[in-house]
Amino acid sequence: MGRWEPNARGRLERAALDLYLERGFEQTTVAEIAGRAGLTERTFFRYFADKREVLFWGSAALQEHLVDAVAGAPDCLAPIDVIAGAVEVAGERMQERREGARRRQAVIVANAELRERELIKLANLSAALAGALRERGVDDPAASLAAEAGIAVFKIAFQRWIDDDDRDLTSLIRESFGDLKAVTAGT
Amino acid sequence: MGRWEPNARGRLERAALDLYLERGFEQTTVAEIAGRAGLTERTFFRYFADKREVLFWGSAALQEHLVDAVAGAPDCLAPIDVIAGAVEVAGERMQERREGARRRQAVIVANAELRERELIKLANLSAALAGALRERGVDDPAASLAAEAGIAVFKIAFQRWIDDDDRDLTSLIRESFGDLKAVTAGT
Repeated sequence: MGRWEPNARGRLERAALDLYLERGFEQTTVAEIAGRAGLTERTFFRYFADKREVLFWGSAALQEHLVDAVAGAPDCLAPIDVIAGAVEVAGERMQERREGARRRQAVIVANAELRERELIKLANLSAALAGALRERGVDDPAASLAAEAGIAVFKIAFQRWIDDDDRDLTSLIRESFGDLKAVTAGT
Repeated sequence: MGRWEPNARGRLERAALDLYLERGFEQTTVAEIAGRAGLTERTFFRYFADKREVLFWGSAALQEHLVDAVAGAPDCLAPIDVIAGAVEVAGERMQERREGARRRQAVIVANAELRERELIKLANLSAALAGALRERGVDDPAASLAAEAGIAVFKIAFQRWIDDDDRDLTSLIRESFGDLKAVTAGT
């Protein structure tokens, strides 16, 4: 019967990232995260299934936004432009959270299990994007190729954004789609 | 002091694939694989560290071939054409082993841990290809984008090859690079 705690999810998330960065993901317990946030373990488990989910709970919403953006894109757009538009929308939503994204990325890079989980997340996003394109009547292999290309661009633009304080993610995504076009044209 | 056994690696590999397909990867023991191959567990461990390695021992050689092909490509080629050439060479080497590749793929698709391992393998191949391009003086993001695009094409061409008896892998790779070019051009 825990009482209502203001912004419990955000407090748990910040406490978890602090601890993962200070002592490592493996070495941190749920009890420590809850304690650092001034909350109980019970409250933790109301928001997250386990300490890994603190880092990955956003993927379902991200996937939903990507798929919705693909489904809602104008009919006249080429598949790659549908994907580019969807990835840009996702990028806009992330833009204000660079510091959190950077901290999360540092935790993930430091742990093999989390790097694997991140790869699976990206592979699932790619499969979902390809599925959403097929729903629009785009055949394979074009649907799969456009989706894979979109996720590759997102990965690379995201890394550039994490590394460079002066750029915003949306413009990096747009630029990277242009780079991909130039690269695949072989010019 | 095991005696020399002719083609022990190949016999163990076939026995392992048979058993993984018959009863599942998880349910198969090394003792059963060795028994099916008419060899000892000791012989198994001379070739493979564990039962997962039976499915992944080829990745190191694959990576080496890809990196060598990138390093040895003519200077005049654009990065994407360097990658396309390397992936085609890898495809040629796989061409005669479609039945084994198909059996291996069926085992991997059926098991979450193996699907993750396969994603990691592909991510490592992409990183190795990007590194080999940087060695040639290709800057990022072009190096990473060309490498990611090459692995995306490989994945898609490989799946088409597994699904379609009448096509050879090299021609599917070549065709898929063309498809990618058309897709990213947005036409």
